[in-house]
Formats: sequence, structure tokens, C-alpha cells
Amino acid sequence: MTTVFIDGLGFIGASLAELMKESQPDVKIIAHDPNPENLQVMIQSGTVEASVAFDEGAKKADWIFLASPVAVICQRLEELAKLDLKSGAVVTDVGSSKVQIEKSAQTLMAKGTAFLAGHPMAGSHLSGAANANPGRLVDHTYFLIQENTSQEEVQDFEDLLSAARFDFRMVDAKSHDHIVASSSHLPHLLAFALAETVAKDQRESDVDWGKPAAGFLDASRIAKADPTMWTSIFLSNPNQVLAEITDFEKEVQKLKKYIENGQEKKLFNQLSATQKDRIQMEKEHE
Amino acid sequence: MTTVFIDGLGFIGASLAELMKESQPDVKIIAHDPNPENLQVMIQSGTVEASVAFDEGAKKADWIFLASPVAVICQRLEELAKLDLKSGAVVTDVGSSKVQIEKSAQTLMAKGTAFLAGHPMAGSHLSGAANANPGRLVDHTYFLIQENTSQEEVQDFEDLLSAARFDFRMVDAKSHDHIVASSSHLPHLLAFALAETVAKDQRESDVDWGKPAAGFLDASRIAKADPTMWTSIFLSNPNQVLAEITDFEKEVQKLKKYIENGQEKKLFNQLSATQKDRIQMEKEHE
Repeated sequence: MTTVFIDGLGFIGASLAELMKESQPDVKIIAHDPNPENLQVMIQSGTVEASVAFDEGAKKADWIFLASPVAVICQRLEELAKLDLKSGAVVTDVGSSKVQIEKSAQTLMAKGTAFLAGHPMAGSHLSGAANANPGRLVDHTYFLIQENTSQEEVQDFEDLLSAARFDFRMVDAKSHDHIVASSSHLPHLLAFALAETVAKDQRESDVDWGKPAAGFLDASRIAKADPTMWTSIFLSNPNQVLAEITDFEKEVQKLKKYIENGQEKKLFNQLSATQKDRIQMEKEHE
Repeated sequence: MTTVFIDGLGFIGASLAELMKESQPDVKIIAHDPNPENLQVMIQSGTVEASVAFDEGAKKADWIFLASPVAVICQRLEELAKLDLKSGAVVTDVGSSKVQIEKSAQTLMAKGTAFLAGHPMAGSHLSGAANANPGRLVDHTYFLIQENTSQEEVQDFEDLLSAARFDFRMVDAKSHDHIVASSSHLPHLLAFALAETVAKDQRESDVDWGKPAAGFLDASRIAKADPTMWTSIFLSNPNQVLAEITDFEKEVQKLKKYIENGQEKKLFNQLSATQKDRIQMEKEHE
């Protein structure tokens, strides 16, 4: 029987647990989480069989899923290098910054343990096992960095999550970190900065602003995301995130200049080109 | 019988037309739009009775709704000042920048015509009458700037749209423009700049990025909005928009500094405070 150990039953860890059970009902899932509520929810639903200490869970498992904030994943990879893991065990993770995680896995891999870095490109501003929602992951992109795993191990991994119909894509760690800095880390940082700007304006205003417009709510929804997780992500991919902010600032400067100078045609052409691109980006993957 | 003339059957004009018919089925709606498709859709559905030239519609109406881009609304207000309108006719608009619109209405108001500036705080990235969707407006904030209208005229206006259960809020033009610069114009500008940044990154990348993550899609949804409308909005409220961008840039600088210096605690505290504010902003108006 296959035993999976999940370290971290947040939104992603818990949702993946449900997807594994759906893919392979015989799989036995054990888990560790600092928050007893997350464990309780998952044990009560029958998805997770038992709560275990990290070392104990790791040593029993065929698959070790590290699903905690990036900084913790890095620590765990170093701890795993000191444990006697089961022969043939494969370690994987779901962290959002792969270069740093790859670095932390060096000792573990030098010992011969298979490590398959991974990242499902889906999430929620809601956190914790109580908000687990496999439906939000289904059909999404799942980046894999093959590291030292065999083709067979990768295939077994994909089978373990087959119910999610993920679009698995092999990339290297650096490309991954560039992609997510642009399409995930940057939007989150901007959402936080936008929500803060508008919240301050509201607080300082004499007028009641009423219900916020839908545009603002959508644009800032991800500012409701877990601050612990996002602190860890931003600090684990700082150079790529800062480079993306610089690129973004150039776009803002361009629009700002057109507005300052009243350059109607240039402003319109830029907004039109962007609108087309944005519509296209969504269409390609419908 | 009450006759309403709507100039501009875009998403807002067409949705308001449907809401008026629902509130007061006896109302007669005539309309003008440069796009024959918008007129056709609304006449076929029976909401609008006839397509008319601007002057003709304006002269026949008890209510004149200006629902075109801001630059056109300003022109129309000056044209209306030259026409012989019906005695007791009230002019209103739905434009997103009130200081400039108020200025353009001076001659009209000096002639004694009642002008009630208005702005429903709802919209869609979809445009045109075919996408009209009164449900997206229901229960939203509707700002009114009373200008020279009587209490009775304001009441009649609210009755004409009663089916939408709007939360009508009286403000002055300057406060309005500050509110929307922050909670609507700024998010739209950022969404355009974000979508452009990510689209460029994608184009320049050797790797296929797969389906964009939900966070990016939400944060940039409003970059699918109509570029004509948004060019007009940004250029009609430039000073407030530019001031909001400056405030926003300060927030980005702060986060950037924390990331550059690896200031984990400060970054976490800032993200936590913003997350709380953002959740609160939504809760207050549930």
C-alpha cells in the first residue's frame, strides 16, 4: 500500500490530499500540521488517517509532500537529509519559489533521495483545510522540475494526482521563478499595494464611499491572501520579484506620461493593445 | 407619459434602460447611438421604442440620460444648452469624472435647465447593449451630485430606477472624483499596466506558461475593459488619477524596500494590516 505523508494541510495540502484519495482510493495519507484544526478537519472527513510528528511521518512514507510556506519547505528539506527515509521514497513540494528550494534540497539529493519539485498554479485567498477545494485546482497548470527523479517516478506522481487533470509542465527552476514572479508574485504585490492605497484614502475621507466597485474588488481580491505565506514567497524570490516590479513601473510611467501630457491617441493605442493581449491570454487556454 | 431619451446604449445605458422599464413599465424610451447594433438589440427586445437623432430625442424628452464616454458627455452638455428642451426636462449623466462634466454643464444650467450629475458604481469589462446586464448594477452605490435640481426631481429620478435598489449617495463633484480616482480609475490603470507587463514577459519567454493563474486573471480582468471609455476617463480626471498613482507608488516602494532588505517582520506586518483592511472593506457592505 502507498503511504503519503503531507507536511502542511493548508488550502493546497488539503486540496491535494482530497485529489489523491479521489485518484487512488487505496492510498494511505498521514499528515503533520502545527494547527490542530487543519488535522481535525481532514481526519474527520476520512481523507487523512492519522496525525504524526514530522520525522515519524517522513520515515513511513513512499511520497513526502512538503506543503508549508517556502521558508518551512527549505528547512524541512534539510531535516529530511538527516533522516533514514524509506528506500524508493520520493520527496516533492508545492512551494512558489524553486531556485531557493532547489538549493535547500542539495544535501538530500546528494544522499540519493529522489526530489521532484512541483508547483500547482492555483490557490485561494482562503486558507486552511476547512477551505480545501479540489475544484479550484482541477485543469490548472502544475509546474514540475525534474531534479533527480526518473521518468517512472514522474509518471507515478502524475498518476497519484490524475483526478485533477493537471496540465503538467516540465521547466527548470529559474524559468519557473521568472514565470511566477511575473504572473503570480507581481499581481499579489500590486493587489496588496492597491488595497492599502484605497483603504488609506477611505479612512482619510469625510465621505462614506459606499460599497466598493466590482473592479476594485476583483483587482484586489488576492490581497486577502495569507500574509505568512506571501511574506515567505516574496522573500524567497526577491531578485525576480524586484525585476518584475521594475518592469511594471515602466508600464505605469508610460501611461502616466500620456495622461500628464493629454496624449489621447497614444494612451488609446496602448490601452487597446493591452486589452487585446489580455483577452488573448485568456482565450488561448479556454 | 414620461419620455426618456438615452444618448449611448453601451453596457450602462442599455442596463439602465432595462431597469427603468422594470421600475416604470409605462415609460417611453427613445435612444441615440452611433452603433446601429446597440439600437437594434434594444429595439428588438422592446425596451427602446425608437432610434432618434440626438437633437430630436433631446427635445422630446422629460429625462435626458447622457451615457456615452466622458468626452462625448461634455460635448453633449454644450449642445443641449443650444436646444429648446421641454419645460421641466431634467438632464442627467453617468460619467466617471464629475468636475469636468460639471464645468461643461454651466451654460446649460445658466439657462435654467435642471442637471443631476450621476454615476452608478458598477460596470463590466464587456461593452455594448448585447452585454447589458441590469443584475450587475442592482444594490450598488449610485453617486449623485445635486447641482441645481430640486428634492422632488431627485426623488423622481430615484423612482425611475427603483427596480435597481441603488444605494444613492449625494456627494460634491470633487469628492466624487477623488473617490473614483482611488477606487476605480487607479485599479483600472494598474490592471492595464499589469496585463501589459505579463503579456510582454510571456512573449519574450522560451517556455509555454500554460493557463494563467486565477490570481492574475482576477487582478487584470478590468484590463479587458473598453479602451475608448478608459482613455476618456483617465484624461478627464488627470490630476486626481496622477495623485493616486503617486500614493500607490509609495506603497510599492515600501514593500520593495522590505523585500530588498529582507525585512521579514516589517513585510509581514504590512501585509497583515492590508489583508485585514481589505477583508473589512468588503464586509462592511455585505
